[in-house]
Amino acid sequence: MSVAFQDLYAEEFSHCYGCGRNNPHGHQLKSYWHADAERTVAHFTADARYSGGVPGHVYGGLIASLLDCHGTASATAFSWRAQGLNTDAIDAMDAIDEGVAALRCVTATLKIEYLRPTPIGIELTIEGALRAIDGRKVWVDLTLSAGGQLCARGEMLAVALSGERASGDGPALKAP
Amino acid sequence: MSVAFQDLYAEEFSHCYGCGRNNPHGHQLKSYWHADAERTVAHFTADARYSGGVPGHVYGGLIASLLDCHGTASATAFSWRAQGLNTDAIDAMDAIDEGVAALRCVTATLKIEYLRPTPIGIELTIEGALRAIDGRKVWVDLTLSAGGQLCARGEMLAVALSGERASGDGPALKAP
Repeated sequence: MSVAFQDLYAEEFSHCYGCGRNNPHGHQLKSYWHADAERTVAHFTADARYSGGVPGHVYGGLIASLLDCHGTASATAFSWRAQGLNTDAIDAMDAIDEGVAALRCVTATLKIEYLRPTPIGIELTIEGALRAIDGRKVWVDLTLSAGGQLCARGEMLAVALSGERASGDGPALKAP
Repeated sequence: MSVAFQDLYAEEFSHCYGCGRNNPHGHQLKSYWHADAERTVAHFTADARYSGGVPGHVYGGLIASLLDCHGTASATAFSWRAQGLNTDAIDAMDAIDEGVAALRCVTATLKIEYLRPTPIGIELTIEGALRAIDGRKVWVDLTLSAGGQLCARGEMLAVALSGERASGDGPALKAP
């Protein structure tokens, strides 16, 4: 599929600083199906302003953001698949199915292990794998690596908001 | 104490996008002892560009960043106290003790629970409490609230790098 998961979100879900196509200030992370068609993948190269305490390395909040945005995008994609929504044929924004656009996952919990310093200015690879899906709950295992070296690992529990849109006062969750 | 913990970090540790005084692009979060002299506290008001998917709410990566930066600052402060380093009398940058400046904590693991949407444009309060300290390991419990409502909770394991400075290839950790 040539369209990023985030580009299939409804307009009102697309303002995220981490991954929203409608946020000109942000990172605009783009997540896709991996070549193995099972996992998901995103790429991102951080510029120098996103330094950690020591220049040359990415600050922890950006690592968390990449894992969070790729994690919820992956959970959304795994939910599309589980619900039989076909996104493979979509190659333009005007082809987005209403069911696809209405489905969005938000993070309930995210656990991050910082394994080694993550370099600035080198392309980072963020991957997601489905651990389990049970109704609206989706568990995703995440990795972030640079030059083939694993830098951070994440475990996410996401919850699908299919059809509800974002009410801002739903169950125990952040807004998407 | 009138000087923020982050303003006691050594120059080479002070470039973090989340909390570094030497990063003009970043959030420059400032952490202090709480009025109860046991916990720690920081305040931050997010502007509209740091939106989540739905405008009006903070994106997940910023929440993670605030918990991460306040968490490592708190772990550093708890380590100063445990090592008998006196920071209470410091009220100017030129008074920083070498032992204080050399001590810096980095995140090993951070678990975040997103409990409810976190508002943009309202002052957020981030607090830290020491759960346990064992040599270089510091466990910190974190909360993030807005207008008295708890929005997110965090659990951090941080590790002190006292005297080592940041080598970039230390044990399983991100650079500060």
